[in-house]
Amino acid sequence: MISKARIKFLKSLQNKKVRDKERLFVIEGDKLVKEFLNAGIPIKMILGKPEFLNNISPDLIAHVDTIEKVSYDELKLLSTLKTPHNALAVVHMPEPEMIISEIIKEICAVLDFVQDPGNMGTIIRAAAWFGIKNIVCSQDCVDVYNPKVIQSSMGALLHVNIYYCDLKGLFISAAGYGIPVFGALLEGESIYDHKLDKKGFILLGNESKGISKDLIPFITEKIRIPKFNNARQGIDSLNVGMAASIVFSEFLRKSACTPD
Amino acid sequence: MISKARIKFLKSLQNKKVRDKERLFVIEGDKLVKEFLNAGIPIKMILGKPEFLNNISPDLIAHVDTIEKVSYDELKLLSTLKTPHNALAVVHMPEPEMIISEIIKEICAVLDFVQDPGNMGTIIRAAAWFGIKNIVCSQDCVDVYNPKVIQSSMGALLHVNIYYCDLKGLFISAAGYGIPVFGALLEGESIYDHKLDKKGFILLGNESKGISKDLIPFITEKIRIPKFNNARQGIDSLNVGMAASIVFSEFLRKSACTPD
Repeated sequence: MISKARIKFLKSLQNKKVRDKERLFVIEGDKLVKEFLNAGIPIKMILGKPEFLNNISPDLIAHVDTIEKVSYDELKLLSTLKTPHNALAVVHMPEPEMIISEIIKEICAVLDFVQDPGNMGTIIRAAAWFGIKNIVCSQDCVDVYNPKVIQSSMGALLHVNIYYCDLKGLFISAAGYGIPVFGALLEGESIYDHKLDKKGFILLGNESKGISKDLIPFITEKIRIPKFNNARQGIDSLNVGMAASIVFSEFLRKSACTPD
Repeated sequence: MISKARIKFLKSLQNKKVRDKERLFVIEGDKLVKEFLNAGIPIKMILGKPEFLNNISPDLIAHVDTIEKVSYDELKLLSTLKTPHNALAVVHMPEPEMIISEIIKEICAVLDFVQDPGNMGTIIRAAAWFGIKNIVCSQDCVDVYNPKVIQSSMGALLHVNIYYCDLKGLFISAAGYGIPVFGALLEGESIYDHKLDKKGFILLGNESKGISKDLIPFITEKIRIPKFNNARQGIDSLNVGMAASIVFSEFLRKSACTPD
């Protein structure tokens, strides 16, 4: 039976401050735990129902510090989901080092104050799909190790490097390289018409406030997803997850059609 | 003070069966209620805090059957949200008549067993943005008047006609018109390369199961959102909301560039 101390520890990881201090986060679900194991990500602890643990190859879990069999009720106690899966794991946070001279070689997504966990999950998933390897987030974005982000990113987290930093500092550092900063703004040019590069920053703003005023001067290319002629008045906006999906698709479509 | 019977009635509308029988649904939020009022949608009842009701033009609410001032606590009791807004309204369901000879004149989205309310909301929002006026849903799709769909579609519901019907019947009826049925399938051709029409059905399938087997024979054009070269292995899929956003964007981009 799982100890009270362990329950307390696992529950404490629902809190960002604890995650940041311990450099650990929790993933839930048979599929996700297997994906992280297969990817060779260092895992500290797996709690699983016998039917999960008995079906895992011993090689795969040889380096996991702690493996504990738990019951449905114990998992339910620890889960942030209404219906828990058969397993959860405590994972060591990857600590990718952001090397500006590297990330500017490709398309890099930059998120300014994206707060909704579902939108963040969607953006990570879209980036992984379209082969965008780096996402830089402002310090006030939702934490990617938030359980809801992990749930909605569906393992795509494994395929994207995520960095948190001061975005002004990022753009100042990158300015010397002459890299374009594409910013989604109402007055921008249609992404369908605008020349899109194979490298550069795609800056996406907050769900309701858009891009912060102090970042707008760094935008070198103003772009926009056009609303179509027969769209009636009063359509507000796409959410930032949808906007990211469409913009990434259009960037990658064009770059695939453009010779190097 | 709001009566117990009214509370019971309003809460009962969280249940699809009751909504279907009463032909009523609930919307929440100052902005949404105002948008529905401005659009002239028949509203049965508005419950609002004084600060909401005192700021509404009397003309706008002249035709509302019942208007009741409520407190924050009363709204909280009725709300499906953690933090209630200042108003909610009970709205008469629109009953658009599906005329096949009309809907085939443009792009029409067809949803097969889309279950997640967030995805449904996203699809409605994307359709509204890209000027797609009609969405046909299979009978087993999530109800568009589900509170979570309404919340995530953000008023876009006002701009799109939504029909529920047997999709096999729809495709059989439409077959005589020679209208293309675009289906998102793994083996399809890239949407970036495929010729896309200005009219036709875009068939999108269930979140995990894809398009039902018995609908696949109706697909005349197999399309796919390509994963990009440098996307690593193991990226599962885009969710159906993201896929819809990207596919609609690509259809409308191409149709805007194609002369009639």
